[in-house]
Amino acid sequence: MSQKPSLDFWYEFASPYSYLAAMRIEAEAQKANFDINWKPFLLGPIFRQHGYQDSPFNELPMKRNYMWRDIKRCCQTQGLAFHQPDPFPCNALNAARLALLGVKLGWCPQFTRSVFEAHFGQGKDISDPNILKSILTSVTRDDVERLWDQAQSPDHKNCLRTQTEHAQSLGIFGAPTFMREQEMFWGNDRLEMALTFQPET
Amino acid sequence: MSQKPSLDFWYEFASPYSYLAAMRIEAEAQKANFDINWKPFLLGPIFRQHGYQDSPFNELPMKRNYMWRDIKRCCQTQGLAFHQPDPFPCNALNAARLALLGVKLGWCPQFTRSVFEAHFGQGKDISDPNILKSILTSVTRDDVERLWDQAQSPDHKNCLRTQTEHAQSLGIFGAPTFMREQEMFWGNDRLEMALTFQPET
Repeated sequence: MSQKPSLDFWYEFASPYSYLAAMRIEAEAQKANFDINWKPFLLGPIFRQHGYQDSPFNELPMKRNYMWRDIKRCCQTQGLAFHQPDPFPCNALNAARLALLGVKLGWCPQFTRSVFEAHFGQGKDISDPNILKSILTSVTRDDVERLWDQAQSPDHKNCLRTQTEHAQSLGIFGAPTFMREQEMFWGNDRLEMALTFQPET
Repeated sequence: MSQKPSLDFWYEFASPYSYLAAMRIEAEAQKANFDINWKPFLLGPIFRQHGYQDSPFNELPMKRNYMWRDIKRCCQTQGLAFHQPDPFPCNALNAARLALLGVKLGWCPQFTRSVFEAHFGQGKDISDPNILKSILTSVTRDDVERLWDQAQSPDHKNCLRTQTEHAQSLGIFGAPTFMREQEMFWGNDRLEMALTFQPET
């Protein structure tokens, strides 16, 4: 039995370009006959390690303004809703913990898309536990309070920490990042190349 | 007589993504039935105004390494030669002055492509006047020493200064940047969108 090649999709819920990638990655992967490994992680600790106090998008007002204009146009092109969230970047810690739990329990992709859609499509505050719990209800029949507590357990908190350290050890410095074995592709604009690139032999 | 729409192509010779854009923009513009206005400028004064001491690509070693890997892959995809120049970024002042002279005299696109190809395709030092003069010889029959002197005249130096100030006044913070009337598109990856985007009405 032949095994499909797979692509690791590293994403962060506060990243607007991760939203664009999350909403189209399964369709693109299907066309290219790839499996996707969903890898939620946190960029904050990585940015801080590099000496950034804030998202690099916020470093210049004109760059920040351009980015939102670009995201709006990209959403229009992809047929996605867009509502600029404020504050930006949000605290995505609990969303990332839950998404990582969803990897274990099988509902990560649906949960991820719903969180991104709530945040960048509707401008909702995804640090609000009620919003996250309501999304959980829509993607699983499991007891939502039990899942929440599981996501807040010391063991699971440690899983997310390890995941972020793994991202860091791979040299990941932004999101989304696609890893095809050792080959890194950064940014929503590189998804097609990540799926089709043929290394020189 | 119907007039073609036009796209302003703002580029800097030290910018590797400007190389990628310069080598394909005429083919893309022809497909989309656009005219291209070639706009050489300098990013250095803009970066310094924003408090950068160096190219933003150099700020993190892992980001810089990634960028060169990405450029190499993109060159491979576009069928372009690639040789990583050292030092990076180069001093592109004289190349930009000459390219701007070429806008007036009609050989800017050929000159621009040849300079980019020498720098990023062959790794040549384009701050070397001999290399620039040899490229001039290949794109015009005019007297090369006379052109060189013209590019170094106070009036022409001032033209490039004004051009860079114009870029700054448009909010340009990187290269390549495409301007379609007031609409800004940053990066080689946005060329297609710049040529095809339909604003919401």
